[in-house]
Amino acid sequence: MKRIYLNDLKNHYNETIEVSGFVDNIRDLQWVQFIILRDDTGKLQITIEKSEEKNKEMVELIANLPLESTVKIKGKLLENSKVKLNGMELIPTEIKVTSQSERELPFNYKDLSGVNLDTRLDYRFIDLRSEKNILLFKVQSTLIKYMREYLYNNNFTEIHTPKFIGTASESGSEVFEVKYFDRLAYLAQSPQFYKQMAMSSGFNRIFEIAPCFRAENSNTSKHATEFTSFDVEMSYIDSVDDVMQLEAEMLTYGLLHLKSELGDEIKKVFGLEIVVPTLPFPVMTLSDIYKELEERYGYKVSESEKNDLTTEAEKLCKNLAHDKFNHEFLFVTEFPALKRAFYHMRDENGVLQGYDLIWNGIEITTGAQREHRYEEIVKNAREKGLDKDVKFYLEFFKYGCPPHGGFAIGIDRLTMLLLDIPTIKESMFLFRGPNRINP
Amino acid sequence: MKRIYLNDLKNHYNETIEVSGFVDNIRDLQWVQFIILRDDTGKLQITIEKSEEKNKEMVELIANLPLESTVKIKGKLLENSKVKLNGMELIPTEIKVTSQSERELPFNYKDLSGVNLDTRLDYRFIDLRSEKNILLFKVQSTLIKYMREYLYNNNFTEIHTPKFIGTASESGSEVFEVKYFDRLAYLAQSPQFYKQMAMSSGFNRIFEIAPCFRAENSNTSKHATEFTSFDVEMSYIDSVDDVMQLEAEMLTYGLLHLKSELGDEIKKVFGLEIVVPTLPFPVMTLSDIYKELEERYGYKVSESEKNDLTTEAEKLCKNLAHDKFNHEFLFVTEFPALKRAFYHMRDENGVLQGYDLIWNGIEITTGAQREHRYEEIVKNAREKGLDKDVKFYLEFFKYGCPPHGGFAIGIDRLTMLLLDIPTIKESMFLFRGPNRINP
Repeated sequence: MKRIYLNDLKNHYNETIEVSGFVDNIRDLQWVQFIILRDDTGKLQITIEKSEEKNKEMVELIANLPLESTVKIKGKLLENSKVKLNGMELIPTEIKVTSQSERELPFNYKDLSGVNLDTRLDYRFIDLRSEKNILLFKVQSTLIKYMREYLYNNNFTEIHTPKFIGTASESGSEVFEVKYFDRLAYLAQSPQFYKQMAMSSGFNRIFEIAPCFRAENSNTSKHATEFTSFDVEMSYIDSVDDVMQLEAEMLTYGLLHLKSELGDEIKKVFGLEIVVPTLPFPVMTLSDIYKELEERYGYKVSESEKNDLTTEAEKLCKNLAHDKFNHEFLFVTEFPALKRAFYHMRDENGVLQGYDLIWNGIEITTGAQREHRYEEIVKNAREKGLDKDVKFYLEFFKYGCPPHGGFAIGIDRLTMLLLDIPTIKESMFLFRGPNRINP
Repeated sequence: MKRIYLNDLKNHYNETIEVSGFVDNIRDLQWVQFIILRDDTGKLQITIEKSEEKNKEMVELIANLPLESTVKIKGKLLENSKVKLNGMELIPTEIKVTSQSERELPFNYKDLSGVNLDTRLDYRFIDLRSEKNILLFKVQSTLIKYMREYLYNNNFTEIHTPKFIGTASESGSEVFEVKYFDRLAYLAQSPQFYKQMAMSSGFNRIFEIAPCFRAENSNTSKHATEFTSFDVEMSYIDSVDDVMQLEAEMLTYGLLHLKSELGDEIKKVFGLEIVVPTLPFPVMTLSDIYKELEERYGYKVSESEKNDLTTEAEKLCKNLAHDKFNHEFLFVTEFPALKRAFYHMRDENGVLQGYDLIWNGIEITTGAQREHRYEEIVKNAREKGLDKDVKFYLEFFKYGCPPHGGFAIGIDRLTMLLLDIPTIKESMFLFRGPNRINP
């Protein structure tokens, strides 16, 4: 018999059906037992009349069944306007316990008051059972699905680059070391070098969704030692504007379809309205931003701080984007080259051809046109003292390599911002940080 | 001006267009220069009349341009039946060199005779430029796209599980060790434990496409220390048959759409016909296979070898599947439990509820119904002496966990088989093995 999902019951009134799920609740009254069954799509009331002789075994079973056990139930589905839960109930003819829970959970995942985050993360498999968390991962999966769909529709190929690398390349101190047979290997901090390799291989346009590893000993709400990066790289661009435009279109496409598919549920469970952005996204240079932050909000920083966005300035970009452009997103351009990676292109005046994308006051992307000219990239690497470490990478540019650019989005952070989750620890399936590597 | 892809030219005759790509070839004759331009979708002839005064600069540029440089070309596209290459040519008005190649490539990627594989892998970014390799990764991307589409259509959620794990769980000797701040961590050999965690969290049906890491010091055509695994896990199954059926349907859906999208190109470039399998896939028990291999092909093995498929038996399964079922795929069931992972379920008679899927004589999947009952999984782990190592995992089954099962497909191996590539080293973007970690 085919299992029916609990959000798909309305077409099955007066039929004998099969449903499966967790026992969310039981009310055992004098004459009747009510079971609330839960699957990942919804809930259903099961009603058992205790007086009926044929129910005797079931009644006994339910009387002793711990909550959170899983069951498979056959029965007749009835419309019943008196039932608060969706106006329907199932009258069971057969209940099979498919797994039995301990009577006491490590914590009550339905009421988190007084439960500390570490306990929740220790028992993340319990924590994930909440309505919010089940929806959170559906939202993430759905958003990524549509962002990927946008890329497929625009001639992108998915690739899978290695996470083992031979040299601690980008910056030795933040790279994890692996014992690799009789030598050392390192874990890639990002697929940057290899997605550029795809460009020099003639792949035209690629993307990759994969883990990145950062050995940063920092405990913030935005950082993890391992996270999932959505990486994009595209050839034959005319300027960084092409990259920014593509990213804006991809995000808009994703959010539009997410809203139409799960917008109502998100509103119900998170109390949030998904805002589909308008195109194009607003763009401002870093120095213009500091100018306007001072004019509008009296925010002043020293000259040296103006080389980068301060955390406070990043936050104020939420207001600025809203007040000036009525937008949630803001591209920030023209960062000083000295603060950015050596592979970002600079124009003939030394202006960096890269950007950050700020969403509601938090940076979600760094993107850029890359330096694809061999002499220039060698010079840039040398300037930062990296030319020996990245020798293998510099080779990629020796035998022809089209102009190209790309960006990366951390999807855990994206999900956190989208659903207003307080920390990345709660927007990842299983968080990894300096002090956490279990379960 | 919008760049036109080279497989999309037929709609642009007599228009002034812009194309970009690598310089695949130049023939510099007395009166005319022919450039063959290549992008990832095709090739185009560019024709420059040397006698025309306005072409003077272009002629000089091309006379000195190394092959494999990249260019952006504007010009008028003409239909010309005398041109062998697609019956068209572009008369350029402007050629811009976007990157200049060295004159000598490290090897000739268009003629691999006498080129050893290590040289090709050392310069993989050159090797990947071949028509076969460009298509190979499009094929992989397209097949995965449709396999994923099948899962989306069937209520699956994509998840991203951590690759850092706290204990060397499945089997200490084959796990990579990472220096993780002041302690050790390990790299996950598979997402097995965590995709099962998703089941106990109530995720219903999930998939993940991500790297796996195996510290096996073996150099075969089928093994790599890092590869990409396509992992699926689903709850509320009635038996392992549900898992096998889903996998067969997913592969069929993928191959069907792959064929319709890229079948012609695959035929042209690889000389191969994609075979869309029929449903259901044939199923045989391990002991029946040995019986038939002996009867049909005189293949005999000792009783002790019958506990698993020998490499030779695996190969002969290609013939068996073909001769007996007219099929490329064969599910093999009823392996002895002692040879399989502790988390595979056994029925009341001790028969293992798992399978291998053999495609054209090579195993591409192991799948199973999992043991979801706490007492049983603890017993199984203890039997293999693993109960302490996997303590964190055993917890997942204490508080209710639906019956579930799943499988994993190594997509590099899948691609290798699909396109009849001799070794996995050539079906991965960048191969990683005990002796190879560069570039």
